[in-house]
Amino acid sequence: MININKAHLRSVNEPELPKDKLEYDQAMHQVELKIGKLLQTAPPLIRRQTSHLAQAFGKGIRARSLLACAMGSDSLISPGAVQAAIAVELLHLATLIHDDIIDEADTRRGIDALHVKFGQKIAVLCGDYLFCLAFDLASSIPPREVDRNKVGSVLPSYFTEICLGEIREVSNTGNLALTEGEYFRIISEKTAALFQASFHAGFLLSDEPPEVSDIYLTIGKEMGIIFQLADDCLDFTSSPKKAKKPVLIDCRRGVMTLPLIHALQIDKTLRGKIERGLAEQELKAAVLAAGGIEYTRSKIEERRTKAEQLISALRSPDKRNRLEGLLKQAAAV
Amino acid sequence: MININKAHLRSVNEPELPKDKLEYDQAMHQVELKIGKLLQTAPPLIRRQTSHLAQAFGKGIRARSLLACAMGSDSLISPGAVQAAIAVELLHLATLIHDDIIDEADTRRGIDALHVKFGQKIAVLCGDYLFCLAFDLASSIPPREVDRNKVGSVLPSYFTEICLGEIREVSNTGNLALTEGEYFRIISEKTAALFQASFHAGFLLSDEPPEVSDIYLTIGKEMGIIFQLADDCLDFTSSPKKAKKPVLIDCRRGVMTLPLIHALQIDKTLRGKIERGLAEQELKAAVLAAGGIEYTRSKIEERRTKAEQLISALRSPDKRNRLEGLLKQAAAV
Repeated sequence: MININKAHLRSVNEPELPKDKLEYDQAMHQVELKIGKLLQTAPPLIRRQTSHLAQAFGKGIRARSLLACAMGSDSLISPGAVQAAIAVELLHLATLIHDDIIDEADTRRGIDALHVKFGQKIAVLCGDYLFCLAFDLASSIPPREVDRNKVGSVLPSYFTEICLGEIREVSNTGNLALTEGEYFRIISEKTAALFQASFHAGFLLSDEPPEVSDIYLTIGKEMGIIFQLADDCLDFTSSPKKAKKPVLIDCRRGVMTLPLIHALQIDKTLRGKIERGLAEQELKAAVLAAGGIEYTRSKIEERRTKAEQLISALRSPDKRNRLEGLLKQAAAV
Repeated sequence: MININKAHLRSVNEPELPKDKLEYDQAMHQVELKIGKLLQTAPPLIRRQTSHLAQAFGKGIRARSLLACAMGSDSLISPGAVQAAIAVELLHLATLIHDDIIDEADTRRGIDALHVKFGQKIAVLCGDYLFCLAFDLASSIPPREVDRNKVGSVLPSYFTEICLGEIREVSNTGNLALTEGEYFRIISEKTAALFQASFHAGFLLSDEPPEVSDIYLTIGKEMGIIFQLADDCLDFTSSPKKAKKPVLIDCRRGVMTLPLIHALQIDKTLRGKIERGLAEQELKAAVLAAGGIEYTRSKIEERRTKAEQLISALRSPDKRNRLEGLLKQAAAV
């Protein structure tokens, strides 16, 4: 009468994962296929949200990074890395959903009875569900070698770090006195930790020797910071069409970004103006005039040079090429 | 400059966990101490919520169940079980926080600027943080024997099941046509899965032979269902003072419970009355009059008899005593 083993039998990761090693493009194709499938087969109540996510699944830079790091000296990638890449992207989607909790309510209020009543709750549950799927996948990845750290044991502490970064960001909403140092701490946690986790997992599933672990971790962290800095610039410089999302959204939410922090440093009249109320376009003009974008771009270049040096120390030319391409993509502003 | 290993070094589970085996009461004391500490040392923004949780930390029936199951033939409990018990209770707290998302907004609206703006967001992040701490703890529990399933690999699929149950419950809010079968499916997932997870983890950390695994899993599931059925009764029968929480809250939220489902079966006029609008006290009276409580209590007794039989098959008298006590506690209405 009671199906006692239901829980662990129903593990999401059992079916149709590849058995053999794959080339990079094949592996990424598997990641995209499986994520699409997981999102489309979500429980009906949250399927509207997950289907939307499936369409919006972007460049998958975290998954691509993980797969590139997992490439062996034969340039092939183990099936475990495909699973880890799916887990990392699902976790990213989960955090996106929970990030948007407040906006959801605003944009949907009054439109749809179910959403008025359960909009936030559905978003929370949808995020939780993806969180759990991610952990479920990560926890069952077999280690490459018996004495090697398991991916599932390494990822959770990065996830805690992401939460801490999110909490720290919310704590500093509208904090015009936020220092550059505090800002870098926040983005190291909220954004770079997941890149670092991807690089760490990729490394663990590669055939690289233990002593190069720190190189991977550092490249991952730098790439994550670069990605966030580039995103900060786009919030000011892009058009809504190009960015495929609303721009100046960080400003509107009171999220402190480096261009703004720098502008506040340079233009001592800006803080007072913002406190007295400044239109979005005026704020944008002030940040541009104070050189906030150039300054942020210079920080991107500094870190990019460092990351490139580290990448050039890796032994596989294929891997170096992939990682250089991803670094370029992360830095694109 | 860059602290590359921050993430995994900062793992929450490293310090001050006991090294030696413990007696049951000592082990439970450790669980309570450590949970209190984790909650009180949460990041400042969410500390108000976590401190509140620390005070409200109840009987810890899930942790107690896990520890009882983990008792060896020497009646002692391994340090890994303490860690697993903490993980299970943190996960429970995380789900409680996310459960309450909607109410938070209602009770706090207009009171506190920060909460008006970030009330829901803080609740989401607080839950996510506890989720991550729980996974972090669970993933680093060493297996009792090399070839034995790791606790960290077994728990995540139960957590997915809990999410599915929550989603199914929200989908059926106010669904007066919900069948008893569907109801049992929902509570098996949303409530019993975490009890089953506790029993499973306890079993894995005990010295019981693999062939008795199913006994543990079945007792866990039965105890979880019994616990939910008893809670359903309390929503109708308890006074707010006794229940230490508002009563008739399930009704108000449109959560379908067994006493109500049974009453709708027996009293065919009830559905129409509810649809036309019924005061809470009238609804309570109708459920009592239709025998909804007696019926639910009879289901509790059926399942309790079954669970008692299974418990009596276990070999350790100490463990049998503990589990019988916990079963009694779960069934208390």
